[in-house]
Amino acid sequence: MQKKRILTGDRPTGPLHLGHYVGSLANRVKLQTEYDEFIIIADIQALTTNFDHPERLKEDVFNVCLDYLGVGIDPNLATIFIQSQVPEIAELTIFYSMFVPVSILRYNPTIKSEAKQYGYDAKGMTYGFLGYPVSQAADITFCRANLVPVGADQVPHIELTRKIVRRFNELYAPVLVEPEALVGSIPRLVGLDGNAKMSKSLGNCIYLSDSPEVVAKRVNTAVTDPARIHANDPGHPEVCNVFTYQKAFNVKFIPELEKNCRAGTIGCVPCKKTLVAAINELLDPIRERRKKYETDPDSVTQILLQGTKRAHEEAKKTMALVRDAMKINYYK
Amino acid sequence: MQKKRILTGDRPTGPLHLGHYVGSLANRVKLQTEYDEFIIIADIQALTTNFDHPERLKEDVFNVCLDYLGVGIDPNLATIFIQSQVPEIAELTIFYSMFVPVSILRYNPTIKSEAKQYGYDAKGMTYGFLGYPVSQAADITFCRANLVPVGADQVPHIELTRKIVRRFNELYAPVLVEPEALVGSIPRLVGLDGNAKMSKSLGNCIYLSDSPEVVAKRVNTAVTDPARIHANDPGHPEVCNVFTYQKAFNVKFIPELEKNCRAGTIGCVPCKKTLVAAINELLDPIRERRKKYETDPDSVTQILLQGTKRAHEEAKKTMALVRDAMKINYYK
Repeated sequence: MQKKRILTGDRPTGPLHLGHYVGSLANRVKLQTEYDEFIIIADIQALTTNFDHPERLKEDVFNVCLDYLGVGIDPNLATIFIQSQVPEIAELTIFYSMFVPVSILRYNPTIKSEAKQYGYDAKGMTYGFLGYPVSQAADITFCRANLVPVGADQVPHIELTRKIVRRFNELYAPVLVEPEALVGSIPRLVGLDGNAKMSKSLGNCIYLSDSPEVVAKRVNTAVTDPARIHANDPGHPEVCNVFTYQKAFNVKFIPELEKNCRAGTIGCVPCKKTLVAAINELLDPIRERRKKYETDPDSVTQILLQGTKRAHEEAKKTMALVRDAMKINYYK
Repeated sequence: MQKKRILTGDRPTGPLHLGHYVGSLANRVKLQTEYDEFIIIADIQALTTNFDHPERLKEDVFNVCLDYLGVGIDPNLATIFIQSQVPEIAELTIFYSMFVPVSILRYNPTIKSEAKQYGYDAKGMTYGFLGYPVSQAADITFCRANLVPVGADQVPHIELTRKIVRRFNELYAPVLVEPEALVGSIPRLVGLDGNAKMSKSLGNCIYLSDSPEVVAKRVNTAVTDPARIHANDPGHPEVCNVFTYQKAFNVKFIPELEKNCRAGTIGCVPCKKTLVAAINELLDPIRERRKKYETDPDSVTQILLQGTKRAHEEAKKTMALVRDAMKINYYK
């Protein structure tokens, strides 16, 4: 039986961090054996917020791929590809835009909150930003993906893709695959500073490409229980940022750490040391794989080219179906 | 010296009529020798208002081409091509959409009035319709056109294209050609019913493909001076619809017709007969050329394929420049 196809990916806007690992990369490594996994490096979507800095994209695309390979994405199992090199995605976006009402986009809660996050008011929002869920529908459907792994907050986007697919199939012919959201608990890693999210712009991240020394330095900056002044004050793990990290990366020591923290028999400094060790233990094999590819950049380029080639072939198949359905395959 | 390039064209939404001839086709025939003329059959743009009837497009595309050849567009001089077969236009539309603010589109007076014309309220307008000036900018720039012949009412659209080009060139690199509007007096032919415009939906047109008998029948339905009850009542050419047509198609008889009409020495029926004769005199060579191509449909297909091939080659050249400028030509 043919494997079901998954579409997942990232906007290449900088190196990936532990938040990405916990939230999606670890899951992708697991899913790649069971599914036919397509991983999009969405460089065109990155332009929705970075159109004035496309010169960074080449490096960012390369580094995101390096991060993927580092965490254990296997290019023999998964298809890593670059959005901008698959023109059919742009064509599908245009086709879909003909029947998506502006109102659905304007009142979409996710667009609204993301617009706010990027500081766009109604006046500053670009046409491309307003339409990114349409372009996302093209990203998902061009390869006829069956499943899209998402967190609960992304379900409305997948719902819009499903609506677009149903509308297309009803208007023209049932050739598009209606994807399902593969909703998992997407654990979200708080920032080192206690902020709700790791985010490059807040400078509260640990990157997958950070050295052991940088990890140690970064963990040392993490905020802990603010009520704990002296090392032997009893701690409150439930309000401690570092404890959240321990739960994510050091689960086997949790009972002991919690007990000692509450008793005031372990200070924040040694507690952080155990965390640094645990994170570095996780990152060491990632670093090793990353290094192997980093010293052979041509192999990474080849992986990107091969994946993009396969994605492009799938796109051409879908486009032929779409043009047949729309009867705009005039002279094939 | 290289000829300047012109971009012009139509949405294929039905057969072309005398209004198109007077307003643009006659001018295109004149311009094709002096300029390198690209004529776009904008089938994707036709979807902005006809996305639920794409099955008509193939025939409409063919017939519009037949109309072009009929009026005397010479495929050895002009490049007639089909928008949907040039995917770079979709890609450029996506690139431009990243830096065009929604507000510029929403408050564009032409979009507003056209939305009203098509019966779109704010709720029903589609994302594609809202963005058609962006897609139009892609239509014009993909072939690096220098000039776009337009009526005064279309100047704001060209102004937006010029803005997009300047913004692109300033953001990335000066590779796009900033087009100029070639503003002519675009004579507008009133409808046979006295309506401001010939329009298929109003049923007040004479089509270039109408037979002499149909032309006679259509002209007979035309409204004239409503104050004229009897054939020998003095007429008022200045309020007569048919007189407007006489001015467009029968200019050499105008002094005589006007004198006789005012004197009541020519009735509306014989006056209309002279108009029918004049229109048929204009249409006869058009019919003849049209018929020649109609009986050899393969030659029309070849003209469309050749033109589209040339347009596609120009599109690829522009896309290479654009990708270089945006630095998203990662692995060329």
